Amino acid sequence: MADIVRICLIGAGRAGKVHARSLNQYLPTAQLVGLVDSVAETLRTTGDEFGVDNRFETLEAALEWNQFDAVIITTPTFTHKELAVTAAGARKHVFLEKPMALNLAECDEIIEATEKNGVYLQLGFMRRFDPDFAAAFERIQAGEIGQPMIIKSLTHGPGLPPAWARDLKTSNGMLAEVNSHDWDCTRWLMGSNPARVYVEVANFKGAAHNIDTPHFYDNVLVNIRFESGGLGSISGVCPCEYGYDARVEIIGERGIMQIGDIKGQSVIVGTNRNQGYITPIYRTWPERFAWGYIREMEHFVHSIQHDTPPKVGGVEGRWAVAGVLAGTKSFLEERPVLLSEVLGVGVGANS
Amino acid sequence: MADIVRICLIGAGRAGKVHARSLNQYLPTAQLVGLVDSVAETLRTTGDEFGVDNRFETLEAALEWNQFDAVIITTPTFTHKELAVTAAGARKHVFLEKPMALNLAECDEIIEATEKNGVYLQLGFMRRFDPDFAAAFERIQAGEIGQPMIIKSLTHGPGLPPAWARDLKTSNGMLAEVNSHDWDCTRWLMGSNPARVYVEVANFKGAAHNIDTPHFYDNVLVNIRFESGGLGSISGVCPCEYGYDARVEIIGERGIMQIGDIKGQSVIVGTNRNQGYITPIYRTWPERFAWGYIREMEHFVHSIQHDTPPKVGGVEGRWAVAGVLAGTKSFLEERPVLLSEVLGVGVGANS
Amino acid sequence: MADIVRICLIGAGRAGKVHARSLNQYLPTAQLVGLVDSVAETLRTTGDEFGVDNRFETLEAALEWNQFDAVIITTPTFTHKELAVTAAGARKHVFLEKPMALNLAECDEIIEATEKNGVYLQLGFMRRFDPDFAAAFERIQAGEIGQPMIIKSLTHGPGLPPAWARDLKTSNGMLAEVNSHDWDCTRWLMGSNPARVYVEVANFKGAAHNIDTPHFYDNVLVNIRFESGGLGSISGVCPCEYGYDARVEIIGERGIMQIGDIKGQSVIVGTNRNQGYITPIYRTWPERFAWGYIREMEHFVHSIQHDTPPKVGGVEGRWAVAGVLAGTKSFLEERPVLLSEVLGVGVGANS
Amino acid sequence: MADIVRICLIGAGRAGKVHARSLNQYLPTAQLVGLVDSVAETLRTTGDEFGVDNRFETLEAALEWNQFDAVIITTPTFTHKELAVTAAGARKHVFLEKPMALNLAECDEIIEATEKNGVYLQLGFMRRFDPDFAAAFERIQAGEIGQPMIIKSLTHGPGLPPAWARDLKTSNGMLAEVNSHDWDCTRWLMGSNPARVYVEVANFKGAAHNIDTPHFYDNVLVNIRFESGGLGSISGVCPCEYGYDARVEIIGERGIMQIGDIKGQSVIVGTNRNQGYITPIYRTWPERFAWGYIREMEHFVHSIQHDTPPKVGGVEGRWAVAGVLAGTKSFLEERPVLLSEVLGVGVGANS
Repeated sequence: MADIVRICLIGAGRAGKVHARSLNQYLPTAQLVGLVDSVAETLRTTGDEFGVDNRFETLEAALEWNQFDAVIITTPTFTHKELAVTAAGARKHVFLEKPMALNLAECDEIIEATEKNGVYLQLGFMRRFDPDFAAAFERIQAGEIGQPMIIKSLTHGPGLPPAWARDLKTSNGMLAEVNSHDWDCTRWLMGSNPARVYVEVANFKGAAHNIDTPHFYDNVLVNIRFESGGLGSISGVCPCEYGYDARVEIIGERGIMQIGDIKGQSVIVGTNRNQGYITPIYRTWPERFAWGYIREMEHFVHSIQHDTPPKVGGVEGRWAVAGVLAGTKSFLEERPVLLSEVLGVGVGANS
Repeated sequence: MADIVRICLIGAGRAGKVHARSLNQYLPTAQLVGLVDSVAETLRTTGDEFGVDNRFETLEAALEWNQFDAVIITTPTFTHKELAVTAAGARKHVFLEKPMALNLAECDEIIEATEKNGVYLQLGFMRRFDPDFAAAFERIQAGEIGQPMIIKSLTHGPGLPPAWARDLKTSNGMLAEVNSHDWDCTRWLMGSNPARVYVEVANFKGAAHNIDTPHFYDNVLVNIRFESGGLGSISGVCPCEYGYDARVEIIGERGIMQIGDIKGQSVIVGTNRNQGYITPIYRTWPERFAWGYIREMEHFVHSIQHDTPPKVGGVEGRWAVAGVLAGTKSFLEERPVLLSEVLGVGVGANS
Repeated sequence: MADIVRICLIGAGRAGKVHARSLNQYLPTAQLVGLVDSVAETLRTTGDEFGVDNRFETLEAALEWNQFDAVIITTPTFTHKELAVTAAGARKHVFLEKPMALNLAECDEIIEATEKNGVYLQLGFMRRFDPDFAAAFERIQAGEIGQPMIIKSLTHGPGLPPAWARDLKTSNGMLAEVNSHDWDCTRWLMGSNPARVYVEVANFKGAAHNIDTPHFYDNVLVNIRFESGGLGSISGVCPCEYGYDARVEIIGERGIMQIGDIKGQSVIVGTNRNQGYITPIYRTWPERFAWGYIREMEHFVHSIQHDTPPKVGGVEGRWAVAGVLAGTKSFLEERPVLLSEVLGVGVGANS
Repeated sequence: MADIVRICLIGAGRAGKVHARSLNQYLPTAQLVGLVDSVAETLRTTGDEFGVDNRFETLEAALEWNQFDAVIITTPTFTHKELAVTAAGARKHVFLEKPMALNLAECDEIIEATEKNGVYLQLGFMRRFDPDFAAAFERIQAGEIGQPMIIKSLTHGPGLPPAWARDLKTSNGMLAEVNSHDWDCTRWLMGSNPARVYVEVANFKGAAHNIDTPHFYDNVLVNIRFESGGLGSISGVCPCEYGYDARVEIIGERGIMQIGDIKGQSVIVGTNRNQGYITPIYRTWPERFAWGYIREMEHFVHSIQHDTPPKVGGVEGRWAVAGVLAGTKSFLEERPVLLSEVLGVGVGANS
């Protein structure tokens, strides 16, 4: 059997705990051995919950101890670049949560650092590992619906994002924090890069939540033209209290495909004929993508054990960031924006 | 265009009004011209509602007037035989609601009267005219699921049946009043007559409703062996407050078919992630079989105008009654009952 | 009972026959008495099929005969204005198919003619009469999902549109011919007028169909900002061979609502576990909106008989045309277009 | 962290491999350390596949080695009693696949052996650990649908059972091998023991498969009366090639509940409007109950580590066997059979 992969988790918050649980409960060939978090209380409770004794306030401290093969980074976006570059510099494989970074220069630094140090970089696009999405991709590749013409992808979720996640200085707002997955999935499933985007945003609940962040929005609708000539739409709504909703619909030259479902569990109950029957809905992203989170971590561990590159890495993360930047520019300037405007000359060659 | 068919409705209650509405609102080639009901108040309000001026307390009175071609009989079961025989004797075509009659002798009298007088007899098995059920039958006939092996049919509905409908003296209880459609549909879709039945019943709500009718039950589960060797199950629940529910599932040698749906309307709403989303349910049988009721009446009118026999008549009605009788005998005697026990020698030749 | 409304149908093609069937088969209080079509063969076969003896090559000829109360206009868009104005001038009520006309000036002429002559004008927005859509509207009005924030509406359909319907000179292309219903429904369900639109189009199948119409597109994706601040998306795909698809999804401040379904019939069949089970899909628009077509005609007839204005008329038709014009301008000029650019000064007061 | 539980798997066939995979791939706190199978080839390939070096032809040989805490028994039914009693005698915890044994005397021996030796016995009723079924049970317990009145449970599956599994001498046929889960689930969800059963069977495909086993059947329909007065239905079909199908429907005094779904994956595709759209179906039981298999094994391991009895043990296994015996007696003798006839006097006290 392959050697156990020893992992240090950086960021012991909600996303971090999802990965910790995958490692502890469902992945015999990896081990969560270290924990980094700058907040002492978080470090203590998460460490206790998952039985991790090696706890550090900083990545640097963890690297002095150095008893691990890889890191999982789940801290806020504005910290990604420095942490990923540092970990790569210490020859640790890097699993990095989305969005990859604040801008393309940071993405490039991360990609360069991992390549130079010969370590793997996997981005946290767990939808690619969800059984539904993965099967859909295979079936599109096999030509079942022909050449994709239109794709629609949505992510709507409950809960107000934290302050840093809606400030364009520390994140790129909902387009990045909520819709990164849609940027990645639409490009992946269409088999083509975005070429032009137009974005409309709306702010319905900001006032009620006393949010005065400039350019705050809680609804977004993106129009995309792909290099293939295909079209795309992304919608984001957050907070929305009806559940966590992530679905895709694709129209190809030969047919339609729908991926995902609002239904969270196959237990329906009807007790009132004037109302109807009730079907459970996915409540949270860890619930919706339970298998996706386990399987993306299996893939990361397997990549390290078998020395094969992860299927989704820096290039994919960078394209999602590029979409976010073009989209943000679009709603700020109220005009369609070409990807080439944010990618710069010749950068498309990365794809 | 064909001559308008003039119709006299006997029984101005709930089922009668469903047919009156089909005639008045959706069937240009027929006309509701007369109304018979022994209850003066019902006669008045239903007559007013549907603009029918010719109103009679008895069928005999209506037959004196005699300005109609056909009758629709929707009165309680114990009156069916006399009304149908009388109408047929006056050479009126007969549309007769289910259950056909209280026993096989009555069924035989009705069949004989209509045949002798050269008029048509159509039974109110509207499920055969529902677009879902009709398409399903065609697809089974076309061999899509192969030879049917098991059929399951259910009718669950809200509302306590009236007293006469649960008394074995004036009706045959739920097996007849609620499940007549299932007896007909299972035989029709299986393409085979029932040969043996076993029935279990339960009484969960009788006490709460102060029902002391002997042998009252509000839940029934029927096991059927068909002449083809196939098996069947029928369930009945009434009253059940979650909606009106009528569905069929068939397993054939080559596959499965499901007919019907709990969903009553394609409008779903989710507002609470801890609960889920809500889908409308069919509330009532007129709502569930809106098209079935219109189309069965279209068929009756068309049969008269074009002088072609209706697709569902006395033989079908008689078989449903036979199933009911065998089923009732089964739960009373707590043993499986052969259809031949109720049909008598050689009667199977009717099929 | 109300007087029978006598109707003359102008345009005996596919849409015309849907209305003829509603009148002949399901609407006892109206009568199809006359038929106008400039193509002799169409006039003959449709006249024969529906038993209409009074047949005319032109509306003028029909008006000389004059034995009718109302017209249904189902001819190509570029003929709408003249026919509607002429019929109104002869004091006939007008049922006019979508799109209302080629431009706003024509819309205004039609509105003025019907108002001046004291006749009713109803637009063929049958979705408003579909039971699903109608119930959804009521539930939104009742506040079930709160203030609408995002609406997504789609119409995808099989079959290549006729040449006149894809030429911007004789129609306004797919945005008008296919997506008129979406323009109307999004405005109706959002309870707000569109304020700004951005449109991307794509042409995937034109070459294979030898279409050289300038600006031809077979895929369209519209982004809308409403006056309320809400956002909207419309997609159109035609031809698409997977079926006729018309669905809406709305996110409100309190929840999500989905209207419509891909499923065309509640009969599912599974025979191959490697493939899955098969659910019928709506094949055509008359099938999808069977009740909508009957009920919109019932409404028109009822409006005339009871002298109450139809619920959907010229103002609604005009707004849909305005959306089409702004959308077309958007994709031609590759920029977002304000509705005020096409409506002109002060025209918004119509709403 | 709790000590790793060391497990020896007895029976390296299909069911055995499902558990081996759960242990190896998803359960860090247990370890598959030994393998027993009397077929050398099976032992070799399964051992290689799961990296298990300690391989034995017999349980006795494995017990000489003795380096394990628990066994999983997945061999044919007629071997269960001896293996379970032997393992318990060596103080190994026992996870035993369904059906528990051939008769109630064997069940009693197994229960006695595990109790006497102070080891745990868990039965392989994985449906109780499926997220859908588990949530449904909780909701019924919470009173959501009121007192259960009727339950319908089905198991239909592809593939002809092996010869031993259809011979009443080495198994109890389909009622045991396929429908054990239904016997357990109906009793569990109804919260009541079966009191009387009536069974009809059919043999549609036996001849085509050259099966001459006496009393062979491939379709079964069970009618149950529970001690509570509630009713139940179980259907079994095997082989059926449309997929693996396991669903339950319950009607309570207050409403309806449906558990499970035919749909295997949320990816639907439509390419042909004359056919409809295709939804994946569950193909196999390991696919349908992927989580159930992992979670039942988690539960077994957790029970051992934390010294708490498993939630489903000998009593539950024994009741399922009792149902099977009464059901078999019913179809052989063509009459309803009371459970008391097979349980004997006073045995009901076990429940």
